[in-house]
Amino acid sequence: METRKIKFSLVYRDMWQSSGKYLPRVDQLVKVAPHIVEMGCFARVETNGGGFEQINLLFGENPNNAVRKWTQPFNDAGIQTHMLDRSLNGLRMSPVPADVRQMMYKVKKSQGTDITRPFCGLNDPRNILDSIKYAKDAGMIAQAALSLTYSKVHTVEYYVNLADTLIKGGADEICLKDMAGIGRPVWLGKIVSGIKKLHPEIPLQYHSHSGPGFALASILEVCRAGVEYVDVAMEPLSWGTGHVDLLAVHAMLKDAGFDVPEINMDAYMKVRSLTQSFIDDFLGYYINPKNRFMNSLLIGPGLPGGMMGSLMADLESNLASINKWKTKNNQPTLSQDDLLVKLFNEVEHIWPIVGYPPLVTPYSQYVKNLALMNVMQLEKGKQRWSMIADNIWDMLMGKGGKLPGELGPELKALAKEQGKEEFTENPQSLYPNALDTFRKEMDEKGWEYGQDEEELFELAMHPEQYRAYKSGEAKKAFEEDLAKRREEGAGLLEGTKKAEVPAAAPANFAPSSMIVDVDGEKFNVSVAYGENGAVQTAEAPVQASTPAPAAPVVNGAVKEVVAPLEGKFYLTKESSETPIKVGDDIKVGDLIGYVEAMKTFNAIKSDIAGKVVEVAFATGAEVEEDDVLVKIQ
Amino acid sequence: METRKIKFSLVYRDMWQSSGKYLPRVDQLVKVAPHIVEMGCFARVETNGGGFEQINLLFGENPNNAVRKWTQPFNDAGIQTHMLDRSLNGLRMSPVPADVRQMMYKVKKSQGTDITRPFCGLNDPRNILDSIKYAKDAGMIAQAALSLTYSKVHTVEYYVNLADTLIKGGADEICLKDMAGIGRPVWLGKIVSGIKKLHPEIPLQYHSHSGPGFALASILEVCRAGVEYVDVAMEPLSWGTGHVDLLAVHAMLKDAGFDVPEINMDAYMKVRSLTQSFIDDFLGYYINPKNRFMNSLLIGPGLPGGMMGSLMADLESNLASINKWKTKNNQPTLSQDDLLVKLFNEVEHIWPIVGYPPLVTPYSQYVKNLALMNVMQLEKGKQRWSMIADNIWDMLMGKGGKLPGELGPELKALAKEQGKEEFTENPQSLYPNALDTFRKEMDEKGWEYGQDEEELFELAMHPEQYRAYKSGEAKKAFEEDLAKRREEGAGLLEGTKKAEVPAAAPANFAPSSMIVDVDGEKFNVSVAYGENGAVQTAEAPVQASTPAPAAPVVNGAVKEVVAPLEGKFYLTKESSETPIKVGDDIKVGDLIGYVEAMKTFNAIKSDIAGKVVEVAFATGAEVEEDDVLVKIQ
Repeated sequence: METRKIKFSLVYRDMWQSSGKYLPRVDQLVKVAPHIVEMGCFARVETNGGGFEQINLLFGENPNNAVRKWTQPFNDAGIQTHMLDRSLNGLRMSPVPADVRQMMYKVKKSQGTDITRPFCGLNDPRNILDSIKYAKDAGMIAQAALSLTYSKVHTVEYYVNLADTLIKGGADEICLKDMAGIGRPVWLGKIVSGIKKLHPEIPLQYHSHSGPGFALASILEVCRAGVEYVDVAMEPLSWGTGHVDLLAVHAMLKDAGFDVPEINMDAYMKVRSLTQSFIDDFLGYYINPKNRFMNSLLIGPGLPGGMMGSLMADLESNLASINKWKTKNNQPTLSQDDLLVKLFNEVEHIWPIVGYPPLVTPYSQYVKNLALMNVMQLEKGKQRWSMIADNIWDMLMGKGGKLPGELGPELKALAKEQGKEEFTENPQSLYPNALDTFRKEMDEKGWEYGQDEEELFELAMHPEQYRAYKSGEAKKAFEEDLAKRREEGAGLLEGTKKAEVPAAAPANFAPSSMIVDVDGEKFNVSVAYGENGAVQTAEAPVQASTPAPAAPVVNGAVKEVVAPLEGKFYLTKESSETPIKVGDDIKVGDLIGYVEAMKTFNAIKSDIAGKVVEVAFATGAEVEEDDVLVKIQ
Repeated sequence: METRKIKFSLVYRDMWQSSGKYLPRVDQLVKVAPHIVEMGCFARVETNGGGFEQINLLFGENPNNAVRKWTQPFNDAGIQTHMLDRSLNGLRMSPVPADVRQMMYKVKKSQGTDITRPFCGLNDPRNILDSIKYAKDAGMIAQAALSLTYSKVHTVEYYVNLADTLIKGGADEICLKDMAGIGRPVWLGKIVSGIKKLHPEIPLQYHSHSGPGFALASILEVCRAGVEYVDVAMEPLSWGTGHVDLLAVHAMLKDAGFDVPEINMDAYMKVRSLTQSFIDDFLGYYINPKNRFMNSLLIGPGLPGGMMGSLMADLESNLASINKWKTKNNQPTLSQDDLLVKLFNEVEHIWPIVGYPPLVTPYSQYVKNLALMNVMQLEKGKQRWSMIADNIWDMLMGKGGKLPGELGPELKALAKEQGKEEFTENPQSLYPNALDTFRKEMDEKGWEYGQDEEELFELAMHPEQYRAYKSGEAKKAFEEDLAKRREEGAGLLEGTKKAEVPAAAPANFAPSSMIVDVDGEKFNVSVAYGENGAVQTAEAPVQASTPAPAAPVVNGAVKEVVAPLEGKFYLTKESSETPIKVGDDIKVGDLIGYVEAMKTFNAIKSDIAGKVVEVAFATGAEVEEDDVLVKIQ
């Protein structure tokens, strides 16, 4: 009979982010906070971090104000607050300069957040150890996270060793972050036992997602093995792609004999109904109803269940393309299930070859996309690996951290052939200090630094969103979008659209950082072109989506560069690149642009030489496979 | 490390019935069966029983043909087939004569069903022991079921003793039927250990529902404790109010070291996509999308999660009624949450007093309805127990079997006051043999008895539905209803309506047995009036829903009997009762009729005496609370 005490944390922040795009506004959060306190069963509440700060900017609110007001009632009640951070990536999806990372912990501590949970999607300790040091220097509790995935290299020993490294590196606590909910219960119990054996004094917290269905069983196992804290959600946002329900965890652990706090059900009903009222107010318009479902189909290939929606959408468009090719080449067409099985098999085949990156965002997308690209190419009689996007190459070459496994020989050879070199230093070294630049910007614009320089921090962490917040553009765009959704009745009630670019993104794609939301996961996508990223509309050869007049075709003298896949076309991606235009001389291998598909940028290089006579699409246009992008004569 | 072999059963029958109203047609079942065999991982498949046979009649198909064709491929492949039966209630919701019960097992065995799983909603061994004997006599494997609920009397010891009784009474196997999925994992493990200790040679099978969220954890515990067989579902009908997903169970048990069969994923994808095609064909029009959700809110009061939809609907209409009263009486009104909390508290309060009937259909409804009635009465300043429906009295008095607990003294006193006596004999004794009557009917109508007299059996088990099937009315009504739904786009895609009476029920309520579907649970409701149940439309005082012209009111000389609650009004319910009509003499305490609300029939008795001058509603009319039913002068 178990009798140990188990404490609960309500992951109110993640509850929303696993379901939809936004979080409640600060006026709503301060309304629900006292009732969460009244429930009497939470030792901790996840208040911020993850997408919290960025989302506040996105709907035009000040995140610093929101964090301070929202943590206050828990601080007052002696309930610990915690936040999620992405180590090297801070509170965004791209690497953050060291001085900005360091500042983050000072600001968050002063705003009332007690604990931070840094994780690295690749489990590279270098990324996490820096965060532990910064957090502790700032007086926060550093709860280092293990990003859980389930593979031949991700063994019990691997995670126990990782935890050992992080604890020896100063971690106060360890979080088992089961981000896709694919950790197997017994395996998880063994990891916890292993860590507790080495470090019995270090508190452990288990964070799961309920999608594949293992989570409640996993909680029983990790509690038996020695975990002290369990992350839970509650109605109406429990289960589905979110987290297990407090009531289920509570009843199970109580029956098992654990010492669990009682729940004040009157307060519970108030929190439940306030949360529902926030959904009814505006948040429901940004919640995909499918996120309320459980899904176990992706356990086999190891992909997180939250990917199912986008995966099926990808599959559908690619199936059409394959079958068009098959029909043209007198081959039998494939069913959607045929393609799904091939995709699953390909994921299992390539995962070891790409070095077992944990199957969590964005790496799960990278692996799935590579697999799908491979299947597409193989089905069309071409080779594996004929298309690898730049950001996937970055991952393979170690620019975000060290891969857990070894790259397969075929990819090592391909990298060599393409002149790509492995990066072995601390990824942070690629991103030098930058606060001074942002200080300069604030001074020039006459913006206040705010309490503990928190406004400077926000500008440095989310530059584009902060500027859009300051200008009022963010609020305006959000309100317009919400009005439109209300009119259309989209969201939780009527089904929502996928992978949409929020209205905050400028329509004709000025250089900007955007948040692209796919299945509730947010991606910071930066797109810039022209010198210093300045918009050069004057030089843009054609207007968006309007093909230029056809170039004169001289009996086969005009050759075409076509899109190898469907997606969004960018004439160039990097700010150092100048978009090609009519009259340019093109050599074989010259960059034409990029096609963004399934969250990856795929470089399109010319396989012909000559002078550009037509550029058929402007940056931002949607192209289909085999669309002519550029004509060369 | 566990190494025991665990075998899987695909509960293809229950998968459908936990999601919606119908099951696939036999032509669809025979299409999917070979691929289920090909999956290679199933030792058993649940083919029929439960609602299977009745549902075939409902859409106008022959259930005998369906069972034979659908079990054949599994019989051929050496996969055992199993069915669910309701012991005393056979394959319906009301008690079945002994000779018909006995015949059932012979017919099902000859049709290819290997195993039957008799359960009693009250866990009265007398009801199950008869079934065990009949089943074994017919050559079937008798797998007796424990109906699981979680209360002070439903202890580990209670269930171990019940299993012991059933095994000593001849049960070949035991099923732990966790019908609401509320069994706590550790508690379940202890029950399994207890049974295995007494009877290590008896195979155990665990059947769960995933709604509250415990199921996967429960499966790990029961497997560790010695269960041999686990019931599973698969995509696209796993999780939600249904069962856990095969892939999740498989991955968890494999990781835990159990010897589990491999899954042929190509065949899996075929079964998955065929099942989806059946949903698209017609079944999706009868699936409430909310049944795909998990729900833990009802764990506290102990009610099955599948009740949430109808509970909230009941709450809404009763809230309006309470608040009307509160406003009239200058009292503060209640919110829906206030009422929900009061209801949950009342369920917890009365459950022990009504003798802890297991909280599964229909008893969960009975308890919830009693609690709601009590809350309504208490809120209006009246007493608890002022309204107890007849079928609830039957349960309390032991007519369906012995209650697990003791009736509370207040209910014992009330029963005595109302002249109700406890029934202690075997409930079967209330339902004498009846096959001869049905033989006579078949002979008169010239109907074939069929192979192994299976047609006679179907008539005797489902008389009304069988007649409607034979006449072609059932098929016609089903097709009309489906056409209507297709036009409206109801069901899985658009949300479905609740508690609907299928079109097969005659519009103006001729004496008939109907299937009333509430949240996917089917209830056989018999309504008859007049001598021998013959329709006496000539004597019906008014036409349906058309109030009669007002009786002359002589200065208060006319008194009124009003409806104490909202629901469907019946002038009489039992065939032995003659409907009252204008001119009848009424004494205090005389029966006026019944109001059917929330699946219970509530007798309305007159509290005044005099001559009936008006009957305001015909049988079948919807009445609101305080509607005048009868005027008496």
